[in-house]
Amino acid sequence: MRERPVTIDPADWVCPLPLRETKRIVLGHGGGGVLSEELIENLFLPAFGTAGGPARDSALLDVPGGRVALTTDSYVVQPLFFPGGNIGDLAVNGTINDLACSGAQPIALTAGFILEEGLELDVLGAVAQTMGKAAADAGVAIVTGDTKVVGRGGADQLFVNTAGVGVVPAGVDIGPERARPGDHIIVSGKLGEHGVAIMSVREGIDFGTVVTTDSAPLHHLVAAMLGVGDPSAVHVLRDPTRGGLVASVVEIARAASVGVELDEARIPVPETVSSACSFLGLDPLQVANEGKVVAFVDPAHSEEILDVMRSRPEGADAVIIGRVVGEHPGMAVAKTAFGTMRVVERELGEQLPRIC
Amino acid sequence: MRERPVTIDPADWVCPLPLRETKRIVLGHGGGGVLSEELIENLFLPAFGTAGGPARDSALLDVPGGRVALTTDSYVVQPLFFPGGNIGDLAVNGTINDLACSGAQPIALTAGFILEEGLELDVLGAVAQTMGKAAADAGVAIVTGDTKVVGRGGADQLFVNTAGVGVVPAGVDIGPERARPGDHIIVSGKLGEHGVAIMSVREGIDFGTVVTTDSAPLHHLVAAMLGVGDPSAVHVLRDPTRGGLVASVVEIARAASVGVELDEARIPVPETVSSACSFLGLDPLQVANEGKVVAFVDPAHSEEILDVMRSRPEGADAVIIGRVVGEHPGMAVAKTAFGTMRVVERELGEQLPRIC
Repeated sequence: MRERPVTIDPADWVCPLPLRETKRIVLGHGGGGVLSEELIENLFLPAFGTAGGPARDSALLDVPGGRVALTTDSYVVQPLFFPGGNIGDLAVNGTINDLACSGAQPIALTAGFILEEGLELDVLGAVAQTMGKAAADAGVAIVTGDTKVVGRGGADQLFVNTAGVGVVPAGVDIGPERARPGDHIIVSGKLGEHGVAIMSVREGIDFGTVVTTDSAPLHHLVAAMLGVGDPSAVHVLRDPTRGGLVASVVEIARAASVGVELDEARIPVPETVSSACSFLGLDPLQVANEGKVVAFVDPAHSEEILDVMRSRPEGADAVIIGRVVGEHPGMAVAKTAFGTMRVVERELGEQLPRIC
Repeated sequence: MRERPVTIDPADWVCPLPLRETKRIVLGHGGGGVLSEELIENLFLPAFGTAGGPARDSALLDVPGGRVALTTDSYVVQPLFFPGGNIGDLAVNGTINDLACSGAQPIALTAGFILEEGLELDVLGAVAQTMGKAAADAGVAIVTGDTKVVGRGGADQLFVNTAGVGVVPAGVDIGPERARPGDHIIVSGKLGEHGVAIMSVREGIDFGTVVTTDSAPLHHLVAAMLGVGDPSAVHVLRDPTRGGLVASVVEIARAASVGVELDEARIPVPETVSSACSFLGLDPLQVANEGKVVAFVDPAHSEEILDVMRSRPEGADAVIIGRVVGEHPGMAVAKTAFGTMRVVERELGEQLPRIC
């Protein structure tokens, strides 16, 4: 039997546990102990800014009385990084936009992470910094958070949930059931870029030109639209994410029991998106967007609202793409380039999984 | 070459896609299309009750002006079902308790699901029903939600995030920095049951007696405590989840720069928990609880607050377990059964991963 060494040369010693020097997430980062605290203090608080405040179970907000909007969205996009953005700004902008589409001005976000053991801290740090920057740019604070870690293979790198709270100004009444015959349907810009940006990197397909995500916050655009005379002239707002424009208008047609008539020739789809979609066999009107809004507005105010939208960068390409009709309630149709009408219907599932 | 059949006997026909008749989650359930809508209408809305209301991007709440608490927590517990509960009531009670420990009365919750393709709908249905029942029992509505689906192996069955909003009554000021020398430290009941319940089923260990989770909502108990004369007599509230009692008191000692002195003989740990912990090599004071609160209160009011706590089932076993001192700021010590003092310190990571 070989004699055991009595002393260990420090140069030969290897720490048996991946402790503070770790470059990767370990299970203990989700344990509520010292490692959790270090992750919050050294990674999340610097990334999110001082708004994170002292560690508490909840954040406290000063809210004026009235209607408050509350929303939640989990983000599981793969890959985490894609042209024009990453899962971090997507998670901030997406939840801001859900609030904006209720007519609310966002005041605070939460961030709940589910991390896979072994995730590189650099990746988490880059995502968190992007979230902090997106939130600061939007003027909305990330006020509280949570981190859980699951073992290797228990999750796919990083998922993040953002919930958001916003305040709905008096006089604003937005909801899918408010669509009514005669309404003009406006889209704030070009469609399909987010989904195509994800597909291009996921499948390694080179479409010639790089299509970047359109991820952007829309609450300032919405505030401007609601500031045009009578705020009740805006009946419905929807951000056409999963399921794209088609899912949005069909859901609204069903909720309000009205018909929707789109004019395909007027719907702005960039050439790069339409060629990528024809290559992949996708319908660009069903591809997700992350920085666009579809609005159903009183026709008496639609030109005025369009002008206000076009005066802002997020709405520079806004156009009227259709109208609400009393016929075929619950159904959307589109006038094709040939002048014929076709029914537009949602996918059963999805064209592109995990795009948000 | 074998001749191809011209007709297919319907009995031999198999649908190539797992459509409506599916018993399992498919990617399309997260796609924002028809399958998503069916999942919401047929599974989530019946489970959560009509409070879900019409499908919107956000839920609208009527909130009185003042301070609003906002919190988020993701739940990744494994297994999903354990003695006394499942991930569903854990996710509802856990977020209610985070709000309660800010002194807030909860008014609404969100539910964000991340599902693994192939998850049985029966499992999701049971979890959702449990969430709906827990929310109804607590008198708090689940008002909005989100579902994402990732491919097989991309997640471990089912994760759920709940965010919550609550209203903090006037005069209530609760926070870890409010602990001050002289405060009595109260715990609302017996410690360690949740963590041991999870371990017993996860590792298939038979401890003789079944230990069930203590998962329970605490907002009514907290309201009763705050109703005792001066609500500002309650300085700090904390639910000792991950990291258990030790993590809670150490964090509070650090936040307030005070010392904490616990009396081990007074800390209520059930015999079943202490024997299971000694078998597993765990410290019961660091095991997670899901239905207990630790309170730091003005000593002039502690007996009164104890009486009120003991008059309710959630606080029937409430006891004073220690006090706040001016010495050793940022540190917690415990008087042992031998009359000596020991330093209590948090784990670096966690004793038990994925217990919530």
